[in-house]
Amino acid sequence: MANTCQSCESCEEGLENFCSKIVFTYNCQDRDGTVTYGGYSDMVVVNQRFVIRFPDGMPLDKGAPLLCAGITVYTPMKYHGLNEPGKHIGVIGLGGLGHVAVKFAKAFGMRVTVVSTSPEKREEALEKLGADAFVVSSDASQMKAAKGTMHGIINTASASMSMYPYFALLKPQGKMILLGLPEKPLQISAFSLVAGGKTLAGSCMGSIKDTQEMMDFAAKHELTADIEVVGAEDVNDALERLDKGDVRYRFVIDVGNTLVAA
Amino acid sequence: MANTCQSCESCEEGLENFCSKIVFTYNCQDRDGTVTYGGYSDMVVVNQRFVIRFPDGMPLDKGAPLLCAGITVYTPMKYHGLNEPGKHIGVIGLGGLGHVAVKFAKAFGMRVTVVSTSPEKREEALEKLGADAFVVSSDASQMKAAKGTMHGIINTASASMSMYPYFALLKPQGKMILLGLPEKPLQISAFSLVAGGKTLAGSCMGSIKDTQEMMDFAAKHELTADIEVVGAEDVNDALERLDKGDVRYRFVIDVGNTLVAA
Repeated sequence: MANTCQSCESCEEGLENFCSKIVFTYNCQDRDGTVTYGGYSDMVVVNQRFVIRFPDGMPLDKGAPLLCAGITVYTPMKYHGLNEPGKHIGVIGLGGLGHVAVKFAKAFGMRVTVVSTSPEKREEALEKLGADAFVVSSDASQMKAAKGTMHGIINTASASMSMYPYFALLKPQGKMILLGLPEKPLQISAFSLVAGGKTLAGSCMGSIKDTQEMMDFAAKHELTADIEVVGAEDVNDALERLDKGDVRYRFVIDVGNTLVAA
Repeated sequence: MANTCQSCESCEEGLENFCSKIVFTYNCQDRDGTVTYGGYSDMVVVNQRFVIRFPDGMPLDKGAPLLCAGITVYTPMKYHGLNEPGKHIGVIGLGGLGHVAVKFAKAFGMRVTVVSTSPEKREEALEKLGADAFVVSSDASQMKAAKGTMHGIINTASASMSMYPYFALLKPQGKMILLGLPEKPLQISAFSLVAGGKTLAGSCMGSIKDTQEMMDFAAKHELTADIEVVGAEDVNDALERLDKGDVRYRFVIDVGNTLVAA
């Protein structure tokens, strides 16, 4: 976000991300009438309240995606108590959000199980990202073995899916955090929430204060996103590959070295 | 509940209500093989862990329904921070659960708005139960005026309904507590949860510790359920009336004075 009203209840409570007059960094009209173009530019002007300090040692390229994916997973983990050592967390979906969710959870000292539709991601999840376990969601016996073991689940899937088998992975009072936006409405059996006192919670970005806290935490733990750097001339190719899910895990455009004024 | 395994993680954490081997007070087989018949009997044997002390001054008849309706609303209010003075809570549905939810919320010092499909319940809600406001859910202008004002909602409706307009009543980070069990799956738009960081949480009864705490709190605030006492001979009539929703708000059977051994 590049700006908000700075005077509503959400803004005054330091929860700018819930301001109804939020100005996103791109494709929005700022309060002075100018249009925001986000990072696709060699210069950007924002109100000082919306500037984050990059900690020493945090690389610009690998740190950049944390300002979206990082804060998106950090906020619900903090807010819903899914940041406590020893707790067991599931991560559904191993993409841009999922891979940093695994890293933050490990940095918090948690036990992490990746739940994925893709058996071929096992090695990546366990060896490279450091997850403790990997469950293929279509494998009934693996799902059954993981039943009732998780304090929380970070659900990054944006496809419509039956939530029932995933709620079953939660312990009583467990929390499923919804970050994706499937187009179709979710079908939720009330019983699957009521019987175990379970929670389904949405989360959207985070406050500026939490974003700074997340960046400082990431720097301290040498936690960055896995990225592929592309030049400005490769943006269209990158978008096509992104559409196919062909990136591990975020593209970063090297604006400083490759953007040429039109 | 009349018993649980007393050795699982939930039982050891004092959350017996989530034990997978829970023995309900009626229509269940207890651990010794006997069948439980609940309150439809002149004597009942339970393990001492499952006995609640009735506080001095709490009438047996008006206090009895608190052991179900009371704890059912008290638990999520406590667990989700919806018990803090000054917060605004909505109560959907004014029946057995809803009317005690209003009373507990007022005892916690909260502002309470009853949301109902039945305009004729307005006077009852405001004058008799002490709610601060009443919103007819089919009245678009009333719903719009209440938009974004509530920290939480206790949803006691057991009919399937579109949740979207009710989520809109919540402030950012607001919590909708689901107590009813509609037969059909709920249709939830992910956006309605994600955009405002909102929560949909189920809740089911409460622990024995919380039940005692709730009873003590109720006694201190002279809070009881509104009841209609019937004799054992009127049970069948009462069940028929219950089916039509024709009771304010709970029937209590006077077992001590009217039950005759067959």
